[in-house]
Amino acid sequence: MTVTETQVTLIQIDNYGPWTVSPSPRREPDLQTLQSRLYADLSQLVAHYDGYVFSTRFDNMIAVTNGIDLAGHRRIQTAVRNRYPVTVSLGVATGTSPREAVGEATATLQAAGSAQDSDRTEILRGEPLCEDGSVQIAHFDVNDATGRYTDELNAFDVFRHIDRGYSALLEYMYDAHDSLSFFIGGDNVISVTPSLDRAAFAETIDHVAETAGIELKVGVGRDLTAGDAGMAAKEALERCRNRGTRVEIGTGESAGRA
Amino acid sequence: MTVTETQVTLIQIDNYGPWTVSPSPRREPDLQTLQSRLYADLSQLVAHYDGYVFSTRFDNMIAVTNGIDLAGHRRIQTAVRNRYPVTVSLGVATGTSPREAVGEATATLQAAGSAQDSDRTEILRGEPLCEDGSVQIAHFDVNDATGRYTDELNAFDVFRHIDRGYSALLEYMYDAHDSLSFFIGGDNVISVTPSLDRAAFAETIDHVAETAGIELKVGVGRDLTAGDAGMAAKEALERCRNRGTRVEIGTGESAGRA
Amino acid sequence: MTVTETQVTLIQIDNYGPWTVSPSPRREPDLQTLQSRLYADLSQLVAHYDGYVFSTRFDNMIAVTNGIDLAGHRRIQTAVRNRYPVTVSLGVATGTSPREAVGEATATLQAAGSAQDSDRTEILRGEPLCEDGSVQIAHFDVNDATGRYTDELNAFDVFRHIDRGYSALLEYMYDAHDSLSFFIGGDNVISVTPSLDRAAFAETIDHVAETAGIELKVGVGRDLTAGDAGMAAKEALERCRNRGTRVEIGTGESAGRA
Amino acid sequence: MTVTETQVTLIQIDNYGPWTVSPSPRREPDLQTLQSRLYADLSQLVAHYDGYVFSTRFDNMIAVTNGIDLAGHRRIQTAVRNRYPVTVSLGVATGTSPREAVGEATATLQAAGSAQDSDRTEILRGEPLCEDGSVQIAHFDVNDATGRYTDELNAFDVFRHIDRGYSALLEYMYDAHDSLSFFIGGDNVISVTPSLDRAAFAETIDHVAETAGIELKVGVGRDLTAGDAGMAAKEALERCRNRGTRVEIGTGESAGRA
Ligand SMILES: Nc1nc2c(ncn2[C@@H]2O[C@H](COP(=O)(O)OP(=O)(O)OP(=O)(O)O)[C@@H](O)[C@H]2O)c(=O)[nH]1
Ligand SMILES: Nc1nc2c(ncn2[C@@H]2O[C@H](COP(=O)(O)OP(=O)(O)OP(=O)(O)O)[C@@H](O)[C@H]2O)c(=O)[nH]1
Ligand SMILES: Nc1nc2c(ncn2[C@@H]2O[C@H](COP(=O)(O)OP(=O)(O)OP(=O)(O)O)[C@@H](O)[C@H]2O)c(=O)[nH]1
Ligand SMILES: Nc1nc2c(ncn2[C@@H]2O[C@H](COP(=O)(O)OP(=O)(O)OP(=O)(O)O)[C@@H](O)[C@H]2O)c(=O)[nH]1
Ligand SMILES: [Ca+2]
Ligand SMILES: [Ca+2]
Ligand SMILES: [Ca+2]
Ligand SMILES: [Ca+2]
Repeated sequence: MTVTETQVTLIQIDNYGPWTVSPSPRREPDLQTLQSRLYADLSQLVAHYDGYVFSTRFDNMIAVTNGIDLAGHRRIQTAVRNRYPVTVSLGVATGTSPREAVGEATATLQAAGSAQDSDRTEILRGEPLCEDGSVQIAHFDVNDATGRYTDELNAFDVFRHIDRGYSALLEYMYDAHDSLSFFIGGDNVISVTPSLDRAAFAETIDHVAETAGIELKVGVGRDLTAGDAGMAAKEALERCRNRGTRVEIGTGESAGRA
Repeated sequence: MTVTETQVTLIQIDNYGPWTVSPSPRREPDLQTLQSRLYADLSQLVAHYDGYVFSTRFDNMIAVTNGIDLAGHRRIQTAVRNRYPVTVSLGVATGTSPREAVGEATATLQAAGSAQDSDRTEILRGEPLCEDGSVQIAHFDVNDATGRYTDELNAFDVFRHIDRGYSALLEYMYDAHDSLSFFIGGDNVISVTPSLDRAAFAETIDHVAETAGIELKVGVGRDLTAGDAGMAAKEALERCRNRGTRVEIGTGESAGRA
Repeated sequence: MTVTETQVTLIQIDNYGPWTVSPSPRREPDLQTLQSRLYADLSQLVAHYDGYVFSTRFDNMIAVTNGIDLAGHRRIQTAVRNRYPVTVSLGVATGTSPREAVGEATATLQAAGSAQDSDRTEILRGEPLCEDGSVQIAHFDVNDATGRYTDELNAFDVFRHIDRGYSALLEYMYDAHDSLSFFIGGDNVISVTPSLDRAAFAETIDHVAETAGIELKVGVGRDLTAGDAGMAAKEALERCRNRGTRVEIGTGESAGRA
Repeated sequence: MTVTETQVTLIQIDNYGPWTVSPSPRREPDLQTLQSRLYADLSQLVAHYDGYVFSTRFDNMIAVTNGIDLAGHRRIQTAVRNRYPVTVSLGVATGTSPREAVGEATATLQAAGSAQDSDRTEILRGEPLCEDGSVQIAHFDVNDATGRYTDELNAFDVFRHIDRGYSALLEYMYDAHDSLSFFIGGDNVISVTPSLDRAAFAETIDHVAETAGIELKVGVGRDLTAGDAGMAAKEALERCRNRGTRVEIGTGESAGRA
């Protein structure tokens, strides 16, 4: 199996803060529409190259882009300019851990100027992977969220519980495992991880149960791209459901799948 | 000034969990696209009646809908059915606190069946406000997020800091002030509150600084609809920026504005 | 019944030609995406005030806007600026015939400068209706288009037939009846007309059958807004289907409907 | 240079007519929104594989898909199902002329059942190209449309003139040159052609000037995919603008470009 080497791209809207209040504060639903459509488009654009984007802070999004070279990045950047009233800058880097990669991707963009420098526009910097490395994706899901939370508590309380579980997971995976974790809606969190084994996931699930009182299961996939690793993770998660297990690690390596 | 009486609508995608894995798990970027476009559309649809929607968990969204009657809700529901492969159910309720309102809105929907009951589709239940009540919106923002975080730390660390500040704010505003707080991107959080005064906001800001180490400012607006209250809050926030203050409370009551 | 008085808005993308080739020709699929999303958004924005927009040439769109005042127009204009890399100018006028109204709406915009003048941006001019007038909408549809064309001829030949029928209809309705006709997809054409009676529609259908060999039926509606008139027209068209008639004129006047 | 061999895909919304009136007629702006968003998405999806889609009748769209295999088609089909309340069927075929290809693509779909057969869903049939063939794209544009039409006549009259020019061009290119021509907005028409030379285009422009009184120029490109051929055509069109010529034929063959 190839070595785990995650390529991360930081996507930053250029000089967005000032734009939101020029010439006077823009209506919030229009900003929400802009941000969520931009995220939807980036999801699609990046997915075409089998990558994943996470909405993160919406003005700063983190993507896993193994397999996408600089020309691909440029094309995504141009597509944004052709459709939106804002532009984006991109910083690309790789690392044996996702944490290392995001650090480098950020640094490469910061070196080009401030996020609110009106002269810093459509930067594209960094070094995409030459050799193929593989990506590991873990798809965490809350057990019986519908029966225990959604159908029982008020909708904001449900959200608080899910959010606490997410925060506990995010901190632990970052501190203990150099992983980046993102809430993707419902009761689901995706972590982009280095090469971690079953024991690491079991112990993480224990930690979240103890500190936040939320019970999780997780499907894990590994492949040359985030898209294929993520799909393998989802299939593994379905195996958790079918077998009643807490951790399933998919094979999913391109060679090994149908 | 009119009494504060918040109308809340819970928007729930019908039977969404099973859909995401039928007949086999759907590609995550397609789900992200679906969810964020649906949220963008709901933002616009609700904004036309001067309401606000928050993305919350994406499969369950919370909206402030003062001024929108059942016919308006039905129209929004139909628009979703006409554009998406999923449908939504809506529960509507009012309360002197947003917490009370969301409780009732949720209960009214739960009484119609489980969120994952395939027979429970396009429910529309609840009692929109008869009398006009006013809404209070607080727009919180991190001081110099660009200089202190975005341009300094790695993008995921920035996200963690913002997320911690958000979690501290969300818990405190809920427990101490029966308010619902939502992260809306960047370094911004909107709280829907009962009638709170300057001291309550100042003390909240202190609390977040102490527990999470994040320095906030806040603009507060109050009006008959979320749209007008939110715009007044944004204008108040700009006054914080111009005057270097931490809390500004806008007038913004429809009568009192241009 | 109120007098027929159509309010028309010309929507023109500002300085769009130069933008499409700056700094070098933009990829056509990106332009197609921009144009069709902008049209979809305008459809929704205008529909919220019960108006209709037609895609026309995409860079110049014609809308029926009875009931929308200048503040409503400004809000639509601002929403475009907040979401797109282009802006729009709007010219508004009314007339007893749609032809007269579109003439005036165009003139009012032309008087503000050329469509490709880089200094002419976000114009909003004209006189929305003070008194309520009513709008008449005719929804034309080809008889058994599926059986005769779609399932029989090659897809481009079908398109040619439909297009010929549309051209014949458009020319005749304009020359003989001062009406504006728009292809809206499939085998459907909507005409915005002055007050025309059953005989006028029957004779138009005869004309199209003779000159283009296409057999049509038509449902006609009349109401205070395009949205209500259009819905009445659709219901009338369904009556054509159920009764096997060629022309049905709906009541649909707000007062007279459920 | 490779032989010209166009691959065409017919995209047909499944059983769309009945859907538009079930259970009662749907609001037209919602249908317009659905149709134009679906077209925008298909534009992007197909463009990722360097193809072009034309909106045609909106319920039936014609795409040039050289280079896209059945797996790519399946992925596009699945993306539609994951985002829309309707599904699409696809028929794929190739031919030395686009006319021949669209004929075969349609026949292959018709053989699977009627467009309004509720049991005929998500068909995918046909034979994508094995060998690489090249595509020829011609981008026609009206001379000084802004000065002569847009700034002078009423907006509907401009539309009529452009539409007449388009109809004349479409009929001639189909009858004389087995080409498929599509209006793409503004004053622009794209023709997908077999291998035609400069004389054929000059004569076509003469024909449109005589029959419809519209003066055109045209840029022509040829390459392995519609995307590359179309971009070469646009660059050639810019050369017409710069040199004051009527017909420019780009090299654009992948090998021969930067
Ligand atoms: N983004 C995303 N959300 C999902 C996915 N699957 C489920 N969800 C969300 O999670 C919510 C809960 O669904 P499930 O996890 O299937 O339901 P559950 O009640 O927790 O049941 P189990 O997980 O089977 O114990 C749904 O409403 C969706 O919002 C997925 O693959 N991606
Ligand atoms: N949703 C939303 N986000 C905003 C708004 N204003 C700013 N932001 C976001 O907040 C980020 C930071 O912008 P600012 O708050 O203007 O910048 P700052 O560096 O924190 O500076 P000050 O707040 O002025 O101290 C931007 O990138 C946006 O993402 C707003 O009105 N709505
Ligand atoms: N825009 C729009 N298109 C429609 C509408 N109704 C039908 N269509 C389109 O018209 C096409 C043909 O549908 P129908 O008109 O129902 O079918 P038909 O075979 O002509 O049958 P009859 O009209 O009942 O004789 C569909 O594929 C749609 O594209 C509508 O209300 N609006
Ligand atoms: N879809 C599309 N439309 C275009 C493109 N270029 C121009 N247009 C449209 O065509 C309209 C007219 O623009 P131009 O053709 O540049 O202007 P013109 O006045 O005809 O000037 P010349 O063509 O230079 O003589 C614009 O408003 C656009 O709608 C293009 O590449 N694609
Ligand atoms: Ca779950
Ligand atoms: Ca800030
Ligand atoms: Ca028909
Ligand atoms: Ca031109």
